[in-house]
Amino acid sequence: MDEQTPPSDFTRLRRHPERAAYDRAAIYAILDAALFCHIGYTRAGRPIVTPTIHWRENNHVYWHGSSASQMLEAIPGTEICLTASIFDGFVLARSGFHHSVNYRSVMCFGRPELVTDRDRKLAALERFIEHFFPGRWQHLRPPTEQELKATRILYMEIDEASAKLRTGDPKDPPEDWNWPVWAGVLPLQLAHGQPIADPHLPPGIFPPEGW
Amino acid sequence: MDEQTPPSDFTRLRRHPERAAYDRAAIYAILDAALFCHIGYTRAGRPIVTPTIHWRENNHVYWHGSSASQMLEAIPGTEICLTASIFDGFVLARSGFHHSVNYRSVMCFGRPELVTDRDRKLAALERFIEHFFPGRWQHLRPPTEQELKATRILYMEIDEASAKLRTGDPKDPPEDWNWPVWAGVLPLQLAHGQPIADPHLPPGIFPPEGW
Repeated sequence: MDEQTPPSDFTRLRRHPERAAYDRAAIYAILDAALFCHIGYTRAGRPIVTPTIHWRENNHVYWHGSSASQMLEAIPGTEICLTASIFDGFVLARSGFHHSVNYRSVMCFGRPELVTDRDRKLAALERFIEHFFPGRWQHLRPPTEQELKATRILYMEIDEASAKLRTGDPKDPPEDWNWPVWAGVLPLQLAHGQPIADPHLPPGIFPPEGW
Repeated sequence: MDEQTPPSDFTRLRRHPERAAYDRAAIYAILDAALFCHIGYTRAGRPIVTPTIHWRENNHVYWHGSSASQMLEAIPGTEICLTASIFDGFVLARSGFHHSVNYRSVMCFGRPELVTDRDRKLAALERFIEHFFPGRWQHLRPPTEQELKATRILYMEIDEASAKLRTGDPKDPPEDWNWPVWAGVLPLQLAHGQPIADPHLPPGIFPPEGW
């Protein structure tokens, strides 16, 4: 198998300011393209990895959850690793060793904090909905104070981050090129399915544009 | 936002043997459906989350990488968390609070070990390729001893695991049903794109069935 190190830039943003412009752009592009991420933290010394959807604003990543969430209880102020990965395809080579995958992945380190202020929380929820479905927030039934209290929002300044990705063809050595087996890339992408309207939806209301 | 706790079964397989049959089936189904996972471990006390592709055999999960991989260097014998998540769609409600996502996710805990025996490693690589592309292994250029040495394979007995998932419609309260905004599920799935043949592929060789 080919765990060939992909074009990699493990970058501590603070330590390589000369690479920061490029790296931040690459890191932000992957973070923004990924619909969800995995957050790693430690509880009683054990690593725990939880999926969540996230959104980014400048150098901060946001996510949310219930006030009853164990993860959201455990992590404010502690160091976490937030990894967002997009699987772009299988890379099939002539030998097992050179098989690989095309992907884009970003790892972000920082210490999350809770958004405690009521108005900041409300504004963050709006940006959350707007991030995924632009224009939707103004049409929603507005949140109640109780709903706001029951929602936790975390944000994290990205202290350090690295992006890793692999693109393109298999890297078989030329002596393998004529081996009689298919080689190339089998692309994968997250695709939209047909919207499924809620059974209680009144007639004449249509799903968001693009779906 | 609705971090409504989804139908959840946090299950220590060893501690709830009466639920093991159902839970194992649910956990294995999600592990098998996910093409890749995220592995959380600690290095110098810091949580780190790395994506990788995996495969399962009975109660073991396998993954692989280069002998030079930091992750594969760090984790044998230590406790890790392997989380595999499938994002099935957005759940759009009438209020921001009840928005959610449909997903299937499994968290597995254990202590990975290296496959060190040469023949076991070769057999595992074969199962790896066959897991993703049944029938392909026999057509590949066989691995060299050097390639085998340059590949690390890890396996982990699943000591504990839990599955979490959400399916179905939004859970708006009936008093919101007539709010004039679209509500329902926007499904997402990882879809195949058109195969991209390697530029050096001789003519007359076709991609794996189903692509």
